[in-house]
This record gives sequence, C-alpha cells and structure tokens, in this order.
Amino acid sequence: MKKARAFPIASIGIIGGGQLGRMLVRKAHQLGCHTTVLDPTPDSPAGQLAGRQIVAGFFDRRGIAEVVRTSDLSTFELEAIDAAYLCQLADEGHRILPDPRLLLTIQDKYLQKCRLSELGLPGAAYVEVEQPSAEAFAAFGYPLVQKARRGGYDGKGVVVLRSEKDFSRHLPVPSILERLVPIHKELAVLVARNPSGQTAVYPVCEMVFVGEANVLDMLVAPADLPTEQLIRAQELAVKCIAALGGTGVFGVEMFLTPEGELLINEISPRTHNSGHYTMEACMTDQFEQHLRAILDLPLGDTCQLMPAALVNLLGEPGHSGSPAVLGLDEVLALSGVSVHWYGKNNTAPYRKMGHVTVLDPDPARAREKAMQVKDILRIVSQT
Amino acid sequence: MKKARAFPIASIGIIGGGQLGRMLVRKAHQLGCHTTVLDPTPDSPAGQLAGRQIVAGFFDRRGIAEVVRTSDLSTFELEAIDAAYLCQLADEGHRILPDPRLLLTIQDKYLQKCRLSELGLPGAAYVEVEQPSAEAFAAFGYPLVQKARRGGYDGKGVVVLRSEKDFSRHLPVPSILERLVPIHKELAVLVARNPSGQTAVYPVCEMVFVGEANVLDMLVAPADLPTEQLIRAQELAVKCIAALGGTGVFGVEMFLTPEGELLINEISPRTHNSGHYTMEACMTDQFEQHLRAILDLPLGDTCQLMPAALVNLLGEPGHSGSPAVLGLDEVLALSGVSVHWYGKNNTAPYRKMGHVTVLDPDPARAREKAMQVKDILRIVSQT
Repeated sequence: MKKARAFPIASIGIIGGGQLGRMLVRKAHQLGCHTTVLDPTPDSPAGQLAGRQIVAGFFDRRGIAEVVRTSDLSTFELEAIDAAYLCQLADEGHRILPDPRLLLTIQDKYLQKCRLSELGLPGAAYVEVEQPSAEAFAAFGYPLVQKARRGGYDGKGVVVLRSEKDFSRHLPVPSILERLVPIHKELAVLVARNPSGQTAVYPVCEMVFVGEANVLDMLVAPADLPTEQLIRAQELAVKCIAALGGTGVFGVEMFLTPEGELLINEISPRTHNSGHYTMEACMTDQFEQHLRAILDLPLGDTCQLMPAALVNLLGEPGHSGSPAVLGLDEVLALSGVSVHWYGKNNTAPYRKMGHVTVLDPDPARAREKAMQVKDILRIVSQT
Repeated sequence: MKKARAFPIASIGIIGGGQLGRMLVRKAHQLGCHTTVLDPTPDSPAGQLAGRQIVAGFFDRRGIAEVVRTSDLSTFELEAIDAAYLCQLADEGHRILPDPRLLLTIQDKYLQKCRLSELGLPGAAYVEVEQPSAEAFAAFGYPLVQKARRGGYDGKGVVVLRSEKDFSRHLPVPSILERLVPIHKELAVLVARNPSGQTAVYPVCEMVFVGEANVLDMLVAPADLPTEQLIRAQELAVKCIAALGGTGVFGVEMFLTPEGELLINEISPRTHNSGHYTMEACMTDQFEQHLRAILDLPLGDTCQLMPAALVNLLGEPGHSGSPAVLGLDEVLALSGVSVHWYGKNNTAPYRKMGHVTVLDPDPARAREKAMQVKDILRIVSQT
C-alpha cells in the first residue's frame, strides 16, 4: 500500500533567513512544501522567497513559538539561536530537526569538543578558559588558537596567537584554547542522515582561506588528495554524525596534518557554505538532501557529475549600502560558471553577497577560472 | 572599464504564472533580478515565488501595461497572450523579448508555417482552411493533421484524421491542414540567442508521446540517434532561430522521417517542457539561459553532464481538487531522481502537476527508471 502525502507535503519552519535559508526555501518549494522563515531583517534573503516571514530575533521566544507551532516541522540555518527554548518546544511534541539538544551541545564549542572527545573522535588538544588571562594562555602554551565558546561564524570568534606577544589580540570572552596543529589541508565533508538511520556522504571538499577576513575563500571538490585519504575523511565524517545521532545535513570540518592524520575542527548542524558546489555538481544538492533527511524521505544520490571550484562573493572593503556588481558580463563569458546572488539589500566590507561555482572536466582549470572570477568580480556600493 | 550593474540587475515582467514562469522566477532571483508575474489565477505557481503578481488575464490590457511599464524588461512563458498589444508597448519603447512581432507570427500556426516556408525551412506540406468542410479536407487528402490556427497547447488543438470517416472529429475553427508525415522520431532542440547575435544550442531531445491526452510523456536527452543526425538537428534549429531573428530561448520541435529527413513541426518562442532536463543535466539550464539571452549577457555553456530521462506528472483521471501524491517515498529511493512540483493548488485529469528527471550514466537505465517513476507515482485528489 503506497503512502499518500497530501500537498503541501509539509509546512516547514526555518529559523534564519540568510542565504542558506534562501536556498532551502527554493528546494522546499520544488519538493511541494510550504515555508515560513524567522529572521529579524524584514525582506531577508530567504523571506523574500518564502511564503511568509516572521520578523523576529533568533532569541525572541514569541516569534520562535509562532514559527514552530504553525509548522509541521522546523529546522534552522544558523547556530546562534535560542536552542534552550527549542528544546522546550521539542519536549512539548513539536518536530524540530536537527534535535535542538544536539544544537545546544554544538553551539558551545567547549561542549562540542567534550562530546567529540567522549565519542573518541580525533581533534586538537584543548582546554576551557572561563576568563582569559595571560597566565592561562601561557600555561596552555603557544602557539594556540583561541575560540569563543559561543557566537563565532565565518572566522569571527577565532584568533591564532603565536606567542605571548599576541596575547593583546585575545578575545575577552569565555573560550577554549586549542593546540595550533600543523595543517596540510583544510577539508569539509557533508553528511546527511535521516531518522530511519540512512546516511549519505558527499565528496570531500578542500577549503582555501585567505588572511584578512578569514571567510571561506575558495573551495575545490573533490579535494586534491589520494583516494585512500578521501575515503578516510568520508568515513570519519559519517562516523562522527552517526555517533552524534544527527538528523539532517551536517558539515564536518577537519584538518589533514602533514602526517596524514585527520582531526575534526568543528561540526555545523546545518547545510554549509562548503556544500554549495553540490547545487551544480551533484545529483542531489545539500538543500534537497537536508529536506529529504528531516522529512524522513529516502536520501538522494550524492554522486558528483563534474569537478567544481567555488568562490564566495564578498562585499568590497570600503563599500557599504545598496550593492552593484562590476565584471558580471566578463564572468558569465567563462564557460561552466554559475552565479548566485543572495538578494541582500545592502553590501558591507567582506559581507557574503553571493557565490560563483565553476564546473570543468579538468579540476585545475575549474580552479583557475574560479580565481579569475575572484579577480574580475567586485561588489561595490551604488554611487 | 568594467560595466557596473546595480542591484537588482533588472526587474523582469513575466506574462504567465505557470510552471515555466515559476522556474524562470527562481533563476531570476539567483541572478539578482526582481520579478513581477501576470496571471489570472491568484497565487499562481510563479506568482507564489515572484515578489509580486498582478492578477489579470492574458488579454487584459490594463494588467499587461502595468507589468510592462513597471519592469525594465518583459518576457512571457506562453503564446496565447495579447501579442498585438505587446507590439504596441514595444513601439512605445518598452523592452519586451522575444520580440512580440515574432510572437504574433508564431502564435498563429498558419502565419508560422508561411514564415518558415519563406525562409526555406523544411516542414510538412500544408494549406489554410478558414472554415473547415468535408470538401476542403477531402481536397487536401487524407491522412492529415488538422491544427487550430490559434490557442493550441499540450496536444490540444491538434487532431489526426486518417480518412473521411474521421471528419466528424475535426475542430470547427480556423485551421491549417498538414500532411501526416511518417515519423521515425519526434525531436526537440532548444536554441538560445541574445541581441548581440550569440547563439547556443542544447543537446537534442527525443520525445515520446502517449495516446489519450497527448501531453509529452517521456523525454530522453540526448536523443538515441547517430551523431551525424544529432548535429543536423542542432544545425537546423540554430538556422531556424537565427533566420527568425529570435531573442531568448526557443524550442524547435521537429520530426525525423524514416528516410532521415528533418521537418520542423513547430516553434515555441519560450522555454519548453522538453528542456526541463537541462536543470539537472546541463551546465546552464534553459531558464538561466533565457534570462542571459534577454538581458544580453553572454550565453552559458549547454554541455550535458549526464544522460537524462524525464516524465511529466499528470493529474490522475477521475481526480479533481486539492492534490495528494502516492508513491513519493518509493520514487525518491531510486538513485538520480529529482522531483519537481509546480505548486498548483488543484489537480485535474491530465493536468501537468510536476515532473521528474532521472540522471543515469547509462541512458537505457535512465529511461527504465523514468518508466518506473511513471508507474509508481500517482497524483490524486485528497479524500
């Protein structure tokens, strides 16, 4: 007997109206779902496309309750939200996925590290510091990475301190200190898991960061590594999400050391910037996969059709306000280029305004074209 | 000096709020454009996603003027619209693409045939009949195909009459009669052309129709034909759209006779059902390509990444009203399957409610899976 699913298949609440929410809304429509977005900014990137936006902050319990109570199922596209209240709503019987109890652990980097250690998953050595002090840092030893326990994203909330002289740059908030490990490559692996326990893993991505703003700068998929290492990275990511009992799509960021060791850097309990390449390059993209997972539908094939490289489009330093783009025509003349704008009404220095994915049968050429895109495109403010 | 494009890149008016409009709206957002849709049905598939819908009929001049005058650029997703009025608005200086004068020719099948003949493009022999009569039909000779001059779509407005006995089934409207040609395969080729004259052509699709409702039933891309014939079909399609001076994406439907002759069946001055496979299977899909073309941006690469088969999801006979779907879970368990729902609030017998694309490295397996999807999925009314 076939199961009947009435339209809409589900009404989905999405906490967070940024670009991840926007791309999720788009896929939700394709799959026959309705969406409600919660975001403090009216006309947010996701809110523009969703049927409905509730304008409220991520800790506004009245707004959160409204989204969750008027949706069949709720999810989120960022970590810095009121997870404790979501736990309460889940206890009242509302479906919220991934499990907000897991979010509560992940959104605190110290609790996240503890959990990963308990599960025997590899990561850099760490300590907690409630109140940063020169003594505590010196006792842990330099070089180190200080990470704010809460609220960091896109490189914010993380500083690398190489010696005592750098202490003046420390973050004056409750933190963890991590050993600065030698890094051969930074990798990210997306894993999807549904409540039935089915798991799907995407090809491994290699992330290249640049200095100043530390926002993900270029991403290459598959990573340029021997098959054996790719498989180990995928296995580690799957093991990690299965051990955490995650439901939905998760990004597992990891370091590959020069000795070939894999260390988990952090987990994102949501779709991930490093997975945007899946929209053009894979049979099932990360947004559809997340929806399949939380709806407990069979997961899609993650097979990659062609090598891809991706660059984020960041607001040009010195420019704020209504955006304009320079070089769009030149970029679209390159073959295999897909441009994604996020619909943000204002640009700001280093703000993520969109991204470009390049497909090319030759991974090196995909990479070259992505660098060309980076050189050509500029997001400025309208004069 | 790079050209600056302010956001939104353009505000685009779209006449028609069906599934083609819906998919166009989605891509318009991705490319940084705003959209306004005109459709008589409130909350139409495209209107649900566009920033704004004007609820008005396709011959409502006040509504059409509002869309066109408040948009930087207007386009359409169906032929049965007030093309004469669009010509007038174009004469007033409004940008409407494809050129409504070309639409005026194409939307009348007799004028379309005449134009194609003038241009020396191959097609079945035809005559015009203002008032259908047994005598006129007999004089032309059976077997024949009668096509209403105006308003036909999805097999409506076309009947095949094999002998005088079939005359009772004729359409009592101004028509053309066409010679019924022996058909080895029915093909469709999408061509894009921008105002700068750049042209791009997609892989050839093979269309398989079934009896009763004659809505496109299964599509396979690339068509299962020798390369030489594929190239000839692409060349003919490009020649046709260049000769017509078209701007935008056009579908060129053609017949391949058992002798290997290619005959143009008809032209669609818009994105086309036969091009939906491009969303998953090609580097640039037909909707993005249409936008690039009408915005006079460089056209995208049409390269196909993997063989594809596509089936339309039609409302089950005997079912009308709020839709429900049977078999969704089973279908999503097949690998390489993408399901698209069009967001229509009501199903009806044979109404196009969505489509499914299957990607598979083996074209025969893609086809088999598409037939499985066809067998498994049912769109019924909610009980």
